[in-house]
Amino acid sequence: MFRKRRNIIVMKFGGTSVADADKIKKVADKAINKKLQNFDVVVVVSAMGDTTDELISLAHKITRNPLRREMDMLLSTGEQVSIALLAMAIQDKGYDCISLTGWQAGILTDDVYSNAKILSINKERILRELNNNKIVVVAGFQGVTAGDEITTLGRGGSDTTAVALAGALDAEYCEIYTDVDGVFSADPNVVPEARKISILSYEEMLELASSGAKVLHLRAVEFAKKNDVILHVRSSFNDIEGTWVMDTNKMEEKMETPLVTGVSYDTNQVKISVFGLEDKPGIAAKLFGEFAGANINVDLIVQNVGESGLADISLTIKEEDLALAEKVLERLKDKLKLERFEVDPGVAKVSIVGAGMQSHPGVAAKMFRCLGDQGINIEMISTSPIRISCVIREDKAKKAVKVLHSEFGLDKS
Amino acid sequence: MFRKRRNIIVMKFGGTSVADADKIKKVADKAINKKLQNFDVVVVVSAMGDTTDELISLAHKITRNPLRREMDMLLSTGEQVSIALLAMAIQDKGYDCISLTGWQAGILTDDVYSNAKILSINKERILRELNNNKIVVVAGFQGVTAGDEITTLGRGGSDTTAVALAGALDAEYCEIYTDVDGVFSADPNVVPEARKISILSYEEMLELASSGAKVLHLRAVEFAKKNDVILHVRSSFNDIEGTWVMDTNKMEEKMETPLVTGVSYDTNQVKISVFGLEDKPGIAAKLFGEFAGANINVDLIVQNVGESGLADISLTIKEEDLALAEKVLERLKDKLKLERFEVDPGVAKVSIVGAGMQSHPGVAAKMFRCLGDQGINIEMISTSPIRISCVIREDKAKKAVKVLHSEFGLDKS
Repeated sequence: MFRKRRNIIVMKFGGTSVADADKIKKVADKAINKKLQNFDVVVVVSAMGDTTDELISLAHKITRNPLRREMDMLLSTGEQVSIALLAMAIQDKGYDCISLTGWQAGILTDDVYSNAKILSINKERILRELNNNKIVVVAGFQGVTAGDEITTLGRGGSDTTAVALAGALDAEYCEIYTDVDGVFSADPNVVPEARKISILSYEEMLELASSGAKVLHLRAVEFAKKNDVILHVRSSFNDIEGTWVMDTNKMEEKMETPLVTGVSYDTNQVKISVFGLEDKPGIAAKLFGEFAGANINVDLIVQNVGESGLADISLTIKEEDLALAEKVLERLKDKLKLERFEVDPGVAKVSIVGAGMQSHPGVAAKMFRCLGDQGINIEMISTSPIRISCVIREDKAKKAVKVLHSEFGLDKS
Repeated sequence: MFRKRRNIIVMKFGGTSVADADKIKKVADKAINKKLQNFDVVVVVSAMGDTTDELISLAHKITRNPLRREMDMLLSTGEQVSIALLAMAIQDKGYDCISLTGWQAGILTDDVYSNAKILSINKERILRELNNNKIVVVAGFQGVTAGDEITTLGRGGSDTTAVALAGALDAEYCEIYTDVDGVFSADPNVVPEARKISILSYEEMLELASSGAKVLHLRAVEFAKKNDVILHVRSSFNDIEGTWVMDTNKMEEKMETPLVTGVSYDTNQVKISVFGLEDKPGIAAKLFGEFAGANINVDLIVQNVGESGLADISLTIKEEDLALAEKVLERLKDKLKLERFEVDPGVAKVSIVGAGMQSHPGVAAKMFRCLGDQGINIEMISTSPIRISCVIREDKAKKAVKVLHSEFGLDKS
């Protein structure tokens, strides 16, 4: 209680990093190494390997429609197994350690089962264990409601747990250990010349995550930005420095901001075109209001008014929302007097992201020209201050990523 | 909150009863049937099939000496999986249901990890769910300490959970579903003529359980006796009435109490003979004090004083305690000046149990004569008011059970 608080580091390991006993022992070594560097260490882990999928398939042998509360009760056991085993591994190497479930760690959430949001963290228990000089292992992906119900946080939940803990504990930084060396300027499977990015701003990371890069989950990055948590995305299989994600404005030595930091793509897109809408105020609002009401995320939107005076609207959604979107549109056919709609699953979204483009005009023109030179037709465009996205034919996506990566000087020098 | 409380039944299902999805669905049917008989239903379940053993072997891949706290953290997930799946199965059949972990169900224990004792049950949550007309599924074998730590109750823990809940909730009775039809007058694998016993007193059940019958765990029966919980031991694979265990003095129609109710045996016994102890006060107390201090349960004890004036003591312990007992005895060799000790693992204990023998002298003599007639030598004897146990050669145990079962008229008529 009375010793000086040491700096806290939060380390998060995903399911592949704790997939078996040997891997768990290696994670134990990493945690101990950090402890030996005189940090107070909090480790967040996911369920081992395929555990979550196995539990889901077990549930589906019982019922096709499990209640979400019971699903959370079931799935939260996966992380509980991991924390116990990791704690044993650390103790076996002679270091004091304690595992904590979500509820023991004071992770309070709302009661949206299977997709709960963290409301607050009661950090008293964790701090007590750290003060007792213990490495603290916390179950990711889970929390507890004010009414003592177990919840899970949905996709990317363990990342969110780690970042939320780092924020609440005022940690030095939060390390996200994964199966790649960091965030790359493009998917290395598509662009062999892709470079690992050393430092990214939260905004760039958000744009990359939301436009197809899968390294970090959007929600965790948003949480980090909001709570000013420095992230370090790195490999759990080596000791190479990874990618830092932080508020780059706060960096002591300012770097030359590159125009474009990364190129990403997303083939999980469907384009829907709606024809023959009345071109009058409120019609688009009604259309997108119905989509929002059905919990369908609409990504890009383009509206044209044809010669007939009727409007055509094109939009993109994720593939998994397609069935629901078709139901909504069928229902709207009469209500909005729309003529017809077309579904086109053969599209992809290619994006360039970079904080530097804010102060450099002409980046969009360069992107469009580059794609045009390759005979790649642009069907839809969307931009943010630090991102430009184009919807193109899906079979051109990888080519587009390659040429853009080269065009903006991102290939390894 | 304002409806009349219905009668509560607690049903407990072991690991074999919930070993797979189909079996879980059958357990769901049994719970629903009870609900349709207008009872409020609380179901206690163990971990599925071999789950607990699998988790233990996973832990041993990490370390040979897992901390018990972490072992409890690990093992308690087994029951959490079962309760979630059973709740899903009941909901899938259209009935309201909720699963509760040990801590959610308010099962407060001490902090003796892996072998915790239930201190109290905060039944508020369970009653609230029953009042909402829900079938309540509770994880057996686990509880929580006042300091929010997860504990497990040790062997037979789910039985104990069920009985403790039945006591706290003032249930009509507690049904223990198992893989046999009830408690038998002897092990049917040894004595094909063995009969299922309809009604047993707590005392008889305790004596049977402690002398080798494996149907019910001793601790659960003790708990039932102390809290006057009526038990119904029955098969989870059929609807045949099983064995009732209760305070037989309270029964409305008194039955003729049989002289002997059952014959049991236990081959998990080792006989230790200690030679050359000084025959003076306090020596035996020291010897057994050391055993008690090492947490070794001593079962039978026989003391003889030889011609030399030195005492010989024979005692029996469980096989798993042998290594520890040998250590204790080596340490005592000097302290108590004992000459030597001998270990004999080739023994078994055969017992006859019956409330009727309290008022009938001559039962012991009949037992000894019966064994003698068969050429079975009796090495040690111990008695309680309703039990007589003999230690004999292990290879004679089954024969002894058979002849005693016949001698006391227990064979099927």
